[in-house]
Amino acid sequence: MAGPERFTRFETLDVRFPTSRHLDGSDAMNPDPDYSAAYLVLGTDDPRSPEGHGFAFTIGRGNDVQVAAIKALAGHVLGRDVEEVLGDMGATWRSFADDSQLRWLGPEKGVMHMAVSAVVNALWDLKAKRAGLPLWDLLSRMSPEELVALVDFRYLTDALTPEDALELLRAAVPGRARRRAELLREGYPAYTTTPGWLGYSDEKLVRLAREAVAQGFRQIKLKVGADVDDDVRRMRLARAAVGPDVRIAVDANQRWDVGPAVEWIRALAPHDPWWVEEPTSPDDVLGHAAIRRAVAPVKIATGEHAHNRVVFKQLLQAGSLDVVQIDAARVAGVNENVAILLLAAKFGVPVCPHAGGVGLCELVQHLSMFDFVALTGTTEDRVVEHVDHLHEHFVDPVRLSRGNYLAPTAPGYSAEIRRESLLRHVFPGGAEWAGVPVAVPSPAGPHAEEVAR
Amino acid sequence: MAGPERFTRFETLDVRFPTSRHLDGSDAMNPDPDYSAAYLVLGTDDPRSPEGHGFAFTIGRGNDVQVAAIKALAGHVLGRDVEEVLGDMGATWRSFADDSQLRWLGPEKGVMHMAVSAVVNALWDLKAKRAGLPLWDLLSRMSPEELVALVDFRYLTDALTPEDALELLRAAVPGRARRRAELLREGYPAYTTTPGWLGYSDEKLVRLAREAVAQGFRQIKLKVGADVDDDVRRMRLARAAVGPDVRIAVDANQRWDVGPAVEWIRALAPHDPWWVEEPTSPDDVLGHAAIRRAVAPVKIATGEHAHNRVVFKQLLQAGSLDVVQIDAARVAGVNENVAILLLAAKFGVPVCPHAGGVGLCELVQHLSMFDFVALTGTTEDRVVEHVDHLHEHFVDPVRLSRGNYLAPTAPGYSAEIRRESLLRHVFPGGAEWAGVPVAVPSPAGPHAEEVAR
Repeated sequence: MAGPERFTRFETLDVRFPTSRHLDGSDAMNPDPDYSAAYLVLGTDDPRSPEGHGFAFTIGRGNDVQVAAIKALAGHVLGRDVEEVLGDMGATWRSFADDSQLRWLGPEKGVMHMAVSAVVNALWDLKAKRAGLPLWDLLSRMSPEELVALVDFRYLTDALTPEDALELLRAAVPGRARRRAELLREGYPAYTTTPGWLGYSDEKLVRLAREAVAQGFRQIKLKVGADVDDDVRRMRLARAAVGPDVRIAVDANQRWDVGPAVEWIRALAPHDPWWVEEPTSPDDVLGHAAIRRAVAPVKIATGEHAHNRVVFKQLLQAGSLDVVQIDAARVAGVNENVAILLLAAKFGVPVCPHAGGVGLCELVQHLSMFDFVALTGTTEDRVVEHVDHLHEHFVDPVRLSRGNYLAPTAPGYSAEIRRESLLRHVFPGGAEWAGVPVAVPSPAGPHAEEVAR
Repeated sequence: MAGPERFTRFETLDVRFPTSRHLDGSDAMNPDPDYSAAYLVLGTDDPRSPEGHGFAFTIGRGNDVQVAAIKALAGHVLGRDVEEVLGDMGATWRSFADDSQLRWLGPEKGVMHMAVSAVVNALWDLKAKRAGLPLWDLLSRMSPEELVALVDFRYLTDALTPEDALELLRAAVPGRARRRAELLREGYPAYTTTPGWLGYSDEKLVRLAREAVAQGFRQIKLKVGADVDDDVRRMRLARAAVGPDVRIAVDANQRWDVGPAVEWIRALAPHDPWWVEEPTSPDDVLGHAAIRRAVAPVKIATGEHAHNRVVFKQLLQAGSLDVVQIDAARVAGVNENVAILLLAAKFGVPVCPHAGGVGLCELVQHLSMFDFVALTGTTEDRVVEHVDHLHEHFVDPVRLSRGNYLAPTAPGYSAEIRRESLLRHVFPGGAEWAGVPVAVPSPAGPHAEEVAR
């Protein structure tokens, strides 16, 4: 091979799972989601190199738009020197986020920003695979200086400077090895949303809540926000099922205005909700702060739809939340989540990632494990969401034991969906959607020779 | 024709103007924009009906992604009863914005929200044409109750309730006829950004600034933010050219963090900038408030990239700005801009719309004229941006006289680009891009039989 290794493959797929058929994932704002991935596979001209996999998560319609946005970044990857791209992931991140013409489509929000996330995460998957390490471990072995170089501090410096970040990371260097061993031994705390979907009957809710406790979970979550009487009844049933010591978080999925949020939360408060999630618009920093002041000491959690680090900065500055909920694929991937973890650490607010969907559990576990080993050094009041959906489609699915995520040991970011699952769920040509055997999908899909793994 | 009139045409075009060839539109964040429109034409099965035209504005790459997002809404329009859709534009707006699967792609921000804008604005163009009225006049003839029904008050009620909005609109009913006559006679104040692009030489800046004053403008605007010494020099030159009585606004296009913004603005302050626009991230409500407090009495303006009504609510609640800058195609079209005009009126902050780009002047003039006739009743400290680009491509271009926008009198929202201009600039097949004669463009483009007008 003459010259440096270069990116030669940038394959996108519109992959959709028909979750609406069973009301899995139903909540007050999203009654019938079809969990979907705008999926990306990166490859190089070196046949020995592994592939990099990444995706943006959507809930059905519009997944094609998300794929189109990922494709708009192909020119920023194809033909580039692989070692150069992977060797300075801070500069690489900026090369995507700072394309001035594409930036106009956000800026740094929505479809275009999620597209950056898919590409950035696929590169991290590739980088970790090539390093022979799971992503959490790769990040946790980087020096404080290397980690700070990943972060774009633009718009953050009134709250967090590079010097602040270095200080936080350096303080955590001494305990890294001990915490790494502890993580590999014990895992990282999880909570489960599996019992709590709005579409489930009371009977199913109670049964699943009991099962969760039996499996070792110390926290569950219920969806709320459609009807206050229903919510109080379901909260009472869940509390009776799990007992007083298991935490029950509730999630309103942005249903309320500020005033109604306060009233609704006060109605739920006697049943001891651990946190109330997304009480109002994810854009409403001041609204969250007003709600939090009114319902204290009930905790407020938000962030899964906060679109970038600037919003997280303000949520922390304004005292809008007790729990920071990062999402692996809403902000622009690993780099921006490192920025948000640093912001949360600076403000002393715990991070409890949003997960579920397609593969979000697989991704965010790495971020929390990095936070534990190399940043905050604690799991106190920290839990990663777990939803028992769609893991069977992943090459390296999450593993849980006694309510804890076990640390991934396979190299990469655990982002890779099995080839046969991808092809079966390609929309609209895949067998799951067309009711026909898997055929070579549309031009957006893979080529026939790439089908076999 | 049996049964009700239905939508049968939803034609999208990727239209791009090669403005980067001449550095028109260059600023500190956007050095080489190609002003573009993700363009939509709506039609019905009644051959007597006019077409509805709308678009989202982008600056080049990614315009195809924006077109894909508009197409994702086709199923919400095609086949629907035209009178039903146009007869309840509040419900129609919600049918787009509340599609739960598409909403996930924002929510209410970025590419997907701008797509809603294109469709909503095309519907308003059609509605106004069918009513035989320019949009500003159509809105100004609606009752307060009808106007309030256009607005989605979700997430606004802690700052603005339907009752508040009714009160504001009812108070303005008595003077409507008098102000309509005044508007038709005098026009609405404009300011010009034409002299101030960063790519222009000092000589060109001074010449264009003098020409602006000679043409009757009482306010001009300069782009700043690349180099502070250059900015001070250009500000001094411009001030000398226009004299002390012409207002000079400056626009940083999001270049600064909070601390640097304060320093930079203090360096410019001796030259009496009328306002400083977009000093930092458009998402940073608290950052704008901190900057504004630090540099008072220099005015702060922002909003062209504020992605929805919830952000405007907070900018007003936090005291982040002195000037609200709405954009016709960033938030979700006419309905959401009515909400923002109501919010600004409630807080007593003047609205000075962002314009320029492709057709933004043509659109926003209608919104400010509606504000004058039927809401705030004043033009004091209110100006609509004017940039002298690309108007020749419009069927009903803006008309200026002595620094004022003259009120449009043709029916519609002035959104329609000439068919020959559309075809010439279709990307990448149009003659302007391919250097070849206009041919039938790609599948996304128009059909041959639709070329002639």
